[in-house]
Amino acid sequence: MTSKIKMDEFISFANILADESSKVVMKYFRQNIKIENKVDDTPVTIADKKSELKIRELINNAYPSHGILAEEFDNTKLKSEYIWVVDPIDGTRSFIAGHKDFGTLIALLYKRKPILGIINCPAHDERWVGVENRITTLNGKDTKTSSKKTIKDCYTITTGLYFENEKFRNGFNNIIKKSKYYILGGDCYMYGMLSSGLVDIVVEDTLKAYDYMALIPVIQGAGGIITDKYNNSITLDSDGSVVATANLLIHKQAINMINL
Amino acid sequence: MTSKIKMDEFISFANILADESSKVVMKYFRQNIKIENKVDDTPVTIADKKSELKIRELINNAYPSHGILAEEFDNTKLKSEYIWVVDPIDGTRSFIAGHKDFGTLIALLYKRKPILGIINCPAHDERWVGVENRITTLNGKDTKTSSKKTIKDCYTITTGLYFENEKFRNGFNNIIKKSKYYILGGDCYMYGMLSSGLVDIVVEDTLKAYDYMALIPVIQGAGGIITDKYNNSITLDSDGSVVATANLLIHKQAINMINL
Repeated sequence: MTSKIKMDEFISFANILADESSKVVMKYFRQNIKIENKVDDTPVTIADKKSELKIRELINNAYPSHGILAEEFDNTKLKSEYIWVVDPIDGTRSFIAGHKDFGTLIALLYKRKPILGIINCPAHDERWVGVENRITTLNGKDTKTSSKKTIKDCYTITTGLYFENEKFRNGFNNIIKKSKYYILGGDCYMYGMLSSGLVDIVVEDTLKAYDYMALIPVIQGAGGIITDKYNNSITLDSDGSVVATANLLIHKQAINMINL
Repeated sequence: MTSKIKMDEFISFANILADESSKVVMKYFRQNIKIENKVDDTPVTIADKKSELKIRELINNAYPSHGILAEEFDNTKLKSEYIWVVDPIDGTRSFIAGHKDFGTLIALLYKRKPILGIINCPAHDERWVGVENRITTLNGKDTKTSSKKTIKDCYTITTGLYFENEKFRNGFNNIIKKSKYYILGGDCYMYGMLSSGLVDIVVEDTLKAYDYMALIPVIQGAGGIITDKYNNSITLDSDGSVVATANLLIHKQAINMINL
């Protein structure tokens, strides 16, 4: 277990990681920068790379025994008790367009379970910090998910219609048909919005560990629920589907609609 | 014709309308407000209504002979030489979710043609002002569309997949397949992004006059092109389809892909 003193130290340190990556990323925001395409045909920029390198450097200096799993460079020491899971820019497509919904995702795992997560959206100047057994904060203030009771009253959001599995896609379509409102677009900012009670259901697919690990403590600490599409807890080895909702009542309804 | 002195007066006044509507709208942003559904099943809030009433009051006081066409209340004096076309909150769904991409759209028409347009996004603190025969500004600074030459290099964006016409929907799908990147979501903020060269192609359907009139001077003054899906100029009586692009080269390619 991680003591309270140690945990407070990790929280301060994770905030420093977010501060420092913000500086790097915002230096390149809305500038004319080179964009490369990776082997999986997703884009990457110098801002992604430099942000990740800065975070890696800080972690390696402060906690040389900790592991690092991040999007742009090789994983290191994944057998460590503590592993940092980092997406230097989640929503690179938004970042490239100069749209503000991208963010940096930072998670700390202890024995493979996330105990700390940060969703840092520097262009919005909004940062959600989630810690195991504590209340999630937005810019330092406690924040919580909504208390909606039925999908009919819910606001649903997803980044795009990237559903690989037909049943999952149909389930999502059923949810948006039943929801009061839905919008598209949002990247990691959607999960911040969920954690602050602004929207109630977020559904996504084809995510990677660095896309979702930081979300878990943020959403759970705000009172929300996050699982895969089968209602399983999300782990490093999950299938990439994410169903995140404001509370257990809504979660059960959403999972049922997906697994009809 | 509108003299330069008169035009400068209108620009100052339109900025006051934007300032005052910002105050009203931001007072309700991310607050727990009541949402009603209109007869067309679209949502409306007290922020939409109060913002529009404030704008109407200011126009009626300053220019009692001018007409007003706006989303929430009855049109007045549409036979006037000058007509103000206003959407107090474009992107009400985003506004309701506490997402920042909504905005207030203000256009001034002279003999039914837009001579002045404002896209005001108060949650982003960004305002685009377009005036006939002048360069568009973003927060007071000149701004322009991109100089991309082929769709293959373009960034395409649309709010959602609200295409009524199948041919148009297929054309849009062809454009996003050929584009370098695309994202969903954005409301009127997309047209500001286009006018500042951040994205290159915006395609939408089912818009109303108050959704598109303000866009025209902004996009044209930034060097961009905006037409309906058949490449016709957009007027008060257009069909609601909008194809807005960075320049003539891109526009021709986009229109061709839609009308194959």
